[in-house]
Amino acid sequence: MSLLVTGSIAIDTIETPLGRVEEALGGSAVYFSLAAALFTPVRMVGVVGEDFDLDRFKPLADKPIDTSGVEVRRGSKTLRWHARYTGAMNSAETLRIELNVLAEHGAPVPPEFTDSRYVFLANTHPALQREFARQFTAADLLVCDTMNLWIENEPDELRKTLGVVHGLVLNEGEARLLTQQMNLVTAGREILKLGPRFVVIKKGEHGSLLVSHDDLFLVPPYPTERVLDPTGCGDSFAGGMMGYLASRGRFDRQTLRAAMARGSVVASFVLESFSVDALSRVTAADVERRLAELREMASFE
Amino acid sequence: MSLLVTGSIAIDTIETPLGRVEEALGGSAVYFSLAAALFTPVRMVGVVGEDFDLDRFKPLADKPIDTSGVEVRRGSKTLRWHARYTGAMNSAETLRIELNVLAEHGAPVPPEFTDSRYVFLANTHPALQREFARQFTAADLLVCDTMNLWIENEPDELRKTLGVVHGLVLNEGEARLLTQQMNLVTAGREILKLGPRFVVIKKGEHGSLLVSHDDLFLVPPYPTERVLDPTGCGDSFAGGMMGYLASRGRFDRQTLRAAMARGSVVASFVLESFSVDALSRVTAADVERRLAELREMASFE
Repeated sequence: MSLLVTGSIAIDTIETPLGRVEEALGGSAVYFSLAAALFTPVRMVGVVGEDFDLDRFKPLADKPIDTSGVEVRRGSKTLRWHARYTGAMNSAETLRIELNVLAEHGAPVPPEFTDSRYVFLANTHPALQREFARQFTAADLLVCDTMNLWIENEPDELRKTLGVVHGLVLNEGEARLLTQQMNLVTAGREILKLGPRFVVIKKGEHGSLLVSHDDLFLVPPYPTERVLDPTGCGDSFAGGMMGYLASRGRFDRQTLRAAMARGSVVASFVLESFSVDALSRVTAADVERRLAELREMASFE
Repeated sequence: MSLLVTGSIAIDTIETPLGRVEEALGGSAVYFSLAAALFTPVRMVGVVGEDFDLDRFKPLADKPIDTSGVEVRRGSKTLRWHARYTGAMNSAETLRIELNVLAEHGAPVPPEFTDSRYVFLANTHPALQREFARQFTAADLLVCDTMNLWIENEPDELRKTLGVVHGLVLNEGEARLLTQQMNLVTAGREILKLGPRFVVIKKGEHGSLLVSHDDLFLVPPYPTERVLDPTGCGDSFAGGMMGYLASRGRFDRQTLRAAMARGSVVASFVLESFSVDALSRVTAADVERRLAELREMASFE
């Protein structure tokens, strides 16, 4: 099934206890697309400024990623993010953010992309997510992400968006903030009442939880020891998951479980380098190998 | 195999966002024994003061728990702990602790118990743990727990103790503090260098991780939604695990995995009531039911 992502394309400067990278390729749409492309072709919709050298897309070359939906906006500048991770690197501290082009209007969806059947709306203003959603009239599966900023400042808009998507992906802190429920299973069930048929709660180094009307599933993290930079992990998880779902053309209980396991494995590679270095070099065989290990690692009698 | 636990017997006052219990039965040896008794007979070694009404042991009656190793010390008072859990209840805030009898010397091990083959040394001063360990000359498996206090204040004593035990059970914060490693797999491997053949890192609501020379295993938590009071969860996890190992009489790779899954399930019942109310009512059939659910809940293609 055709898969499309709307999200950010960024120039990231990242500091972690193990190093630093300056002005590297980042953004939710980029991580998502590289992860999804391991399973299926992906259409990328986003916007950069005229300061964006298209050579930066080199890691996306030779992959089934269609970047024709990336607008290069004249007179605008690309999103820039400078962040630092400390300790167990479970959350980023934003040192500086220049929204630039993201503070303007959203990227236009090319007419030839509006027939996309599987669509992921990465984190942005929930009204803009809904504006995107409206254009995909043939969508079988619409999934979105969100963040604390919208949960706190745009709760009504977010609720409307949750009323039109089929799935929500968010992290544990966001799930608790959105529902005021500390227990994550309870939080997941509360979110289902807002509209989505399933919710995936990402727990960082602790894996992810699926709550749906007919399932409750825990996917463990692939326990890599080489954690250099967690940037893009969540978006790559979503990319791996959605890419697998689109490749199978269904999102029933068993397929959702299998898709989350793939997302978990793909995210483990992202941790092992700065920016998209490791992710852009991963092969389908690498994914299969870790998947087999993960399955073995989680089995018991 | 005979199983013995040395640990505390306490009178707990616990406050959580969902209620409060006053002067209830608690202590590591109590939770451990009730959990282990679901799988095998258990010998309990501990000490209480003369203020301890033995009627408090009623929840242990009719279980295969031998309390003849519990000393009632004249002139002393029982350990009392008053604690509060807030938010996601991941850690307790001690409001008041009266060590009382625990600040004196350890409990004597009855001579007829020194032939125990499987022994769990619950958290106490590492020198005292070693003093206990020395007495179990027939032990096949010695496992201990520890806490921040000893990691910070008695690092040399703790290292000596880790040199004589076969296994260590501790929580993720303690593992990080002990090794100064943020990555839990790396932390586990560092601990193996100190002596134990395996280490189990408890991650609270996120399950547990086993690191050994020949295995890496992730056991998910049983995702109960009725979380009233987490007191005793870690000790019950250890009790379920050790009880199962003793019942099988071995602690190879597959048996350790199976034992941790049982520990995870037993701990889930503890959460659902204050004190030992729920734990003392659990049956082997209840454990089997949740175990089957947990297995199903963690499976993927």
